[in-house]
Amino acid sequence: MSIPEQIDQGANAADRRVLVFDTTLRDGEQSPGIALNTAEKLEIAQQLARLGVDVIEAGFPITSPGDFEAVQTIAREVSDPAPPIIAGLARTHVADIDAAWEAVRDAERPRIHTFISTSDIHIVHQLQTTREDVKGQARAAVAHAKRYLEDVEFSPMDATRSEVEFTAEVVKIAIEEGATTINIPDTVGYAMPHEFQAFLARLYELVPELRDVTLSVHCHDDLGLAVANSFAGVLAGARQVECAVNGIGERAGNASLEEIVMLLRTRRADVGGLDTGVNSRELARTSRLVSRLTGYPVQPNKAIVGRNAFAHESGIHQDGVLKERSTYEIMDATTVGLESNSIVLGKHSGRHALHDALAEMGFEVDGQALNTAFKRFKEIADKKKAVTAMDLEALMSDELRGEIPGYTLEWFEVEASSRRPPHARVAVRLPEGELAEGSFTGDGPIDAVLAAINTAVGMHPKLSDFKIGAVTEGQDALGEVSVVVEIEGRSGSGQAVSTDIIEAAARAYVRALSVARARTLEPRDAAGLPATAP
Amino acid sequence: MSIPEQIDQGANAADRRVLVFDTTLRDGEQSPGIALNTAEKLEIAQQLARLGVDVIEAGFPITSPGDFEAVQTIAREVSDPAPPIIAGLARTHVADIDAAWEAVRDAERPRIHTFISTSDIHIVHQLQTTREDVKGQARAAVAHAKRYLEDVEFSPMDATRSEVEFTAEVVKIAIEEGATTINIPDTVGYAMPHEFQAFLARLYELVPELRDVTLSVHCHDDLGLAVANSFAGVLAGARQVECAVNGIGERAGNASLEEIVMLLRTRRADVGGLDTGVNSRELARTSRLVSRLTGYPVQPNKAIVGRNAFAHESGIHQDGVLKERSTYEIMDATTVGLESNSIVLGKHSGRHALHDALAEMGFEVDGQALNTAFKRFKEIADKKKAVTAMDLEALMSDELRGEIPGYTLEWFEVEASSRRPPHARVAVRLPEGELAEGSFTGDGPIDAVLAAINTAVGMHPKLSDFKIGAVTEGQDALGEVSVVVEIEGRSGSGQAVSTDIIEAAARAYVRALSVARARTLEPRDAAGLPATAP
Repeated sequence: MSIPEQIDQGANAADRRVLVFDTTLRDGEQSPGIALNTAEKLEIAQQLARLGVDVIEAGFPITSPGDFEAVQTIAREVSDPAPPIIAGLARTHVADIDAAWEAVRDAERPRIHTFISTSDIHIVHQLQTTREDVKGQARAAVAHAKRYLEDVEFSPMDATRSEVEFTAEVVKIAIEEGATTINIPDTVGYAMPHEFQAFLARLYELVPELRDVTLSVHCHDDLGLAVANSFAGVLAGARQVECAVNGIGERAGNASLEEIVMLLRTRRADVGGLDTGVNSRELARTSRLVSRLTGYPVQPNKAIVGRNAFAHESGIHQDGVLKERSTYEIMDATTVGLESNSIVLGKHSGRHALHDALAEMGFEVDGQALNTAFKRFKEIADKKKAVTAMDLEALMSDELRGEIPGYTLEWFEVEASSRRPPHARVAVRLPEGELAEGSFTGDGPIDAVLAAINTAVGMHPKLSDFKIGAVTEGQDALGEVSVVVEIEGRSGSGQAVSTDIIEAAARAYVRALSVARARTLEPRDAAGLPATAP
Repeated sequence: MSIPEQIDQGANAADRRVLVFDTTLRDGEQSPGIALNTAEKLEIAQQLARLGVDVIEAGFPITSPGDFEAVQTIAREVSDPAPPIIAGLARTHVADIDAAWEAVRDAERPRIHTFISTSDIHIVHQLQTTREDVKGQARAAVAHAKRYLEDVEFSPMDATRSEVEFTAEVVKIAIEEGATTINIPDTVGYAMPHEFQAFLARLYELVPELRDVTLSVHCHDDLGLAVANSFAGVLAGARQVECAVNGIGERAGNASLEEIVMLLRTRRADVGGLDTGVNSRELARTSRLVSRLTGYPVQPNKAIVGRNAFAHESGIHQDGVLKERSTYEIMDATTVGLESNSIVLGKHSGRHALHDALAEMGFEVDGQALNTAFKRFKEIADKKKAVTAMDLEALMSDELRGEIPGYTLEWFEVEASSRRPPHARVAVRLPEGELAEGSFTGDGPIDAVLAAINTAVGMHPKLSDFKIGAVTEGQDALGEVSVVVEIEGRSGSGQAVSTDIIEAAARAYVRALSVARARTLEPRDAAGLPATAP
C-alpha cells in the first residue's frame, strides 16, 4: 500500500487534525503503585489543558468515591486556557453510566466513554455470556448515555483479538444509537501495524457509517508497538489517538503521548499535513510533572522526554552537530520545552519575585499558599546557590501534596557509620493529633529511619518501591524520593523533595503511609473492582 | 500491501531465521554517562553469549586503548555456550580497519563492520567531500577489510535521509568488493515504517545482488519507532536486526533487543515463522545486568523487561486473568525469565551452597574469587533474612567492579538530623597508597559524605547523575546506587550495592571517581573522537 493511498483512505481523510485523548489519569493511573489523590490529579489535568490535549479521560467514576470526586473536580475546575472535553469511563452497566454522568456533567464539554469486549476469549471466559448479549448491552449502554449528553464514545474492548465481522456488528449498533466516537482498542498489545491497519480498513468496508463519526485508536505497548500501531491507525483514518504521558498504563503501558505528538509534528509534511493541536513546548514539563507525581521514572534514553534524548555522545556525532545541527538532529530540543534550565531566583529573591516566577510557569499562587511556598523556597535557597525553574516545579508539586490528612513527620535524628550499625530516632504526629516517638537500629540509615517511623505509627507495611532522583544537576541538587508502600493490599505512593535525602525519604514515606491508610478506609464498589481498562 | 506479500518479498525470504546483532557494547555504550571498563564489558558479552545473540559488536577499537583492549578481551574469551561473531567497528580509514582487525582477529568468528555516510547532509556538512569520494572510500575500505577476513559488514550511514539511488550505488560497490552483510541504518531515527519498507523494497530493485548477502537494519528511537521500523525491515527481507539491551544507545537509543525478540517469538506464526535464536528466558537477567552496570534504569512500564510489564492492576483485568490468563496475557512472564524471585540462600548457607547457587546462575567462581564472594555474601546474609538469586546477581556484579585501580573508601561516619546540618567524616585510600581523611558539614547526609570524599581526594568533580534503587522488595532490600561524575570533560560511572544506602552511595561515588580519573589518563585518538555510531 503506497503512502498516499494509506493517508487518504480514512473516513475523515479531508480532516488533517488528529485529536489527542489523554488517558494518563485513567489507564495511566491504573499502573501498579500509582495512587494519585484529587489534588494531584487536578494538577495533572490542569497541565494537560495547558499542553492542549483535546480530551482528558479523568477516571472511572463508579470504581470508588475517590475516583468519582477526582473526575468531578476536574470536570468543574479545568477550563484554562480552553476547556478540554472531560471523559468518564463506564462499563455498559446502568450504574456505571449514571456515575460517569454525575461526575462529568458539570464540565463545559462532558463525554461518557462506555465499553464492552467483543473477543470470544473475553465473552466466554470473563463475561461468561453470549455475543447476542454483548450486542444488547452495547445498544442499551449507548442509548442510556445518549439520554444524558450528545458526546458518547464506545469501545469494543479487545477488538484486535475479535472477529472483525462481529466487532463491525457491535460498532454498527453503537453508531445507530448515537455514539459519536468509536475507539478500537488493542487491549493486550498484540497487534502488528500492518495487521491493525488491515483490521481498520476492513471495518470501514463493513461499517460505511464509520465515516460519519470519529474513529479512535487505543494501543498498548506489550510488544513495543503502541506508537507504531497508533500511527498505523491514523494513516488508516483514525482522527483520535488515546495515549498517556510517558507511556504509562496497564502492564507495558499505552502509546506515549509525546512520541505520537512529535512523530506527527516532525513528519507532518510527509503524511499529508496530519497533526495534533498540542503545544509541544509543554511536553517536557508535563512529562516531569507526571513522573514526579506518579513516582514512575523516565528512562534517560526515552524518546522525546528522556534526559539524553537530545544528547550527542559520540565524537563523530558531536563533530557533526557542531558543524551543522541537522546532521544528527531531526528535532530541536526547545520545541519540546527542554530549554536550558536557567536560574530564576536566588537567596535574596523576595515574595514578589517568587510570585512572578511561579506565575510565568503557570502556577497562580497567592495569600496563605504563597506564604507557605515562600517559606519552602527560602529553606531551599539558603542551601542552594541558584534556584531554577525545575526546582520551583518540584517544590510546587511537593507543596500540593501537603494536604493529605494522616501522619506528619515532626523531627528525626540518624547516626550512620561504616564501623557500627546506624541508629535512628523519629517523632511522628498521628492522625488523631498525638505525638508518637520511635527508634530503631537498622542495616542502613534510611532503613533505620523508616523502621523507626513504623515503630512510631505501629504499622509494618510492605515497601514495594523506593527511588531517589536528583531534580537538577550538581552537588547541591534537590533530592527527590518516591516511595510505594502496601497496607492490606492497598498501595500508597509518596514523594518529597529536599536537599537532605534522609529528610526527603522520611517525608515521602510518611506521605505514602497516609495515602495507603486513606485508601484502606475507602469502600470498594459492589463488584469489588477498584478500576479497569479497555 | 498484504501480509503474505510483505513477508515474502525479501532476498532471503526462504530463510526464516533473523540474526540478532547486539550493539549494547558499542552504540549502547556511547550513551552519555555510561563508562564501562573491560571487566564489565566482558561480563555483559558473556551474558549476551548465554542469551544466544548471533553477533556482538564489542566496540570501536580505534577510538581508545581502553576500547581496543575490551574488544580484544571479548574476542579472546567469549565462546560459551557457542562462539558468537565478534564485530569491531571502523570508519573507512585504513588505520580504523587495521585496529578493528587486530582487536577481533583472535575471535573464533571475527567480523569487521565499516561505514560511511551516503546522505548529502552528512557528505556536504560533516565529511565535506563529494559523492565520488564516498564511493571510493567505501570500495577501498571493504577491499582492505577483505584482505584480513571473510566476514565484512558495510553500512551506508544516514541511509534513510539519503537518495536511494546513490545509496544503491554505494551498496553495489560494497557487495562487489565482498561485503557479506549490508546494514541500512536509520541513524537519526527519522524513518516511518511504511517509508522504510518502501526504501528497502526500492533498494532490492536497484541492487538485485542484495539477495546474495544478508540485509541488516539499524534503527534509532527518536520518534518512538525503532522497533516498528526494524520489524518493517524484517518484513521487507532483512535477516539481521541491530539492537541493544533495554534499547540504550545514542540519544533515544536503538531498537530494544528484548522487544524485537519477543515480538517475533509471540507473532511468529503470523509472520511466516520468522524468529531469532535467542533464549528468551535469559532476557530479564540480561536487562538487569545491563541496567546495573550502565546505571541506566528501566522504566517500570518498559515492554518485556519493565517491573510492571506483566502486572495486572485494574480490577477487571485481575478478574479476567484469574478466570483465564489469556484474557489479558499474550506472553507468559516465565518465558522472559521473570520467574518468582525465589529465596536461594540464608545466613547458615556455606561456601559450597554459594558455589552451587552461583554455578546454577552461570557464574563459575572458585578459589580466591569464591572467598571474596563468600565474605560479601555473609555480610549481606547477616543483615537480610533471605538472600535471593537477584541479590546474588547484584553482589556478583558488584564484586567484578572491585578491580578498578584508583581510590578506595576505608571508612565513613555521618550524623544527620532535622534539627541541625548533617556532618560527615571519611577516610579514602589514594591511588598512591596514602590514607586521606576529609570532613564536611553539608545540606544532606549523602551530600556531606560526597563532599567529605572530595575534600579527602582534593577534587571537585561535577555530579551528573545520582540514582538509588532497590534490588529486591521489602525493608531489608539491598540498595543499589549509581553515580555519574565528570572530571575534565570525561565522565565516569560507579555502582555499588549495600543494605546501607550511605555506604552504597559512598562506594559508588569513589568508584565513579576512579573510572573518571582513569579516563582522563587515556589518550584520545588522532581525530579527537572518543567514539561514534552509524
